[in-house]
Amino acid sequence: MDIGTAKIAILGGTGKEGGGLALRWASKGHRVIIGSRSIERAQAAAAAINERLGVSLATGNGLAAATAEAEIVTLAVPYAAQQETAKEVASVLAGKILIDVTVPLVPPQVSRVQLPAGRSAVEALQERLGPEVRVVSAFQNISAHHLDDLDAEVECDVLVCADDNSAAEAVIALSTQIGLRAWYAGPLCNSVVSEGLTSVLIALNRRYKVPGSGIRITGIDGLEIA
Amino acid sequence: MDIGTAKIAILGGTGKEGGGLALRWASKGHRVIIGSRSIERAQAAAAAINERLGVSLATGNGLAAATAEAEIVTLAVPYAAQQETAKEVASVLAGKILIDVTVPLVPPQVSRVQLPAGRSAVEALQERLGPEVRVVSAFQNISAHHLDDLDAEVECDVLVCADDNSAAEAVIALSTQIGLRAWYAGPLCNSVVSEGLTSVLIALNRRYKVPGSGIRITGIDGLEIA
Repeated sequence: MDIGTAKIAILGGTGKEGGGLALRWASKGHRVIIGSRSIERAQAAAAAINERLGVSLATGNGLAAATAEAEIVTLAVPYAAQQETAKEVASVLAGKILIDVTVPLVPPQVSRVQLPAGRSAVEALQERLGPEVRVVSAFQNISAHHLDDLDAEVECDVLVCADDNSAAEAVIALSTQIGLRAWYAGPLCNSVVSEGLTSVLIALNRRYKVPGSGIRITGIDGLEIA
Repeated sequence: MDIGTAKIAILGGTGKEGGGLALRWASKGHRVIIGSRSIERAQAAAAAINERLGVSLATGNGLAAATAEAEIVTLAVPYAAQQETAKEVASVLAGKILIDVTVPLVPPQVSRVQLPAGRSAVEALQERLGPEVRVVSAFQNISAHHLDDLDAEVECDVLVCADDNSAAEAVIALSTQIGLRAWYAGPLCNSVVSEGLTSVLIALNRRYKVPGSGIRITGIDGLEIA
């Protein structure tokens, strides 16, 4: 799929993970709208991206306004804020793709997999938002540190889970554009693996004293990335 | 850890996954005891391994007798038989390492992650067996087809989950001996990822029309395998 360029909101784009995705997407010509509870912080984060890249593609706005402006919306907030943030923007999400990056970590034991209610957090989100929002789970395992280094090859694949086939393909296209190998890993319920894997990678980082372990899918050839 | 050679029971060793592990371990000098509800089938599977390798390291026996003979016990039965098989051998498991290979697939939808009671199957097993059995989760993502080809490099890492550190290290040593890269992926509850990942790999196999996708952990150097 050729995704062209799009208007992408990143709710929580003032944080490291969301900010890293915003930076990468802006570097490939997308219009990115940083959404935050604080408009000032959103605008400051957007200005920093524009300055770094020498572009004027990033803007900042409140959560609902950023969502309303965008064609594709990314939710990159801490787990504790996931449901409330989604509720705040729900009325302007209908028909859009919502990329959920949420990892249901339970501090302080973030290296233990602790799934809320025994299933993926993104399934609960889809239920809350209803079928008119095309929810896709992705990017949970990509370290913000790697995203921020535009020259670095990110040695971690993206598992994309969605019940909507074309929404999954759009997110795969958005991943490969920014240099990430991405795979359609099955329906939304399979996001249990992506969400849990972040805790496994944290456990590996601690155990083997490395800054950023990741995963690669093997046994599938011929996938091209940008 | 140098594991030396051990007496390893493989319950369900007449099946493909258990049989593949038995073959690989016997090829490295371990005594393997195939355990099955049918002693005849267990003995036939053992004889096939001995003949193929030109050794006399494999024997076959009933489930409880195989378990009683072994120092390390591997449970490689279908999910539907996991709890009953464990119950049958529980009285001779105390103090031993039990390697659980079980994947809680729910046919026919095996490409969907469907965790029993919202947690890993191996945690339920550990609870049933009690703390005197050192339960380790491993090998769920390694295709039997790859294990059976002794000359093939298996392009899939082993995630080892356990609450007992030395038991995890023993299983990592047993993995590296047979050419598999293995990692201590955290406590037993993290097995949600290993168990779910099998359905994700099945989804990838179907989606991308490949016979055996797998995973590699990235970002950690210096691990040597046999």
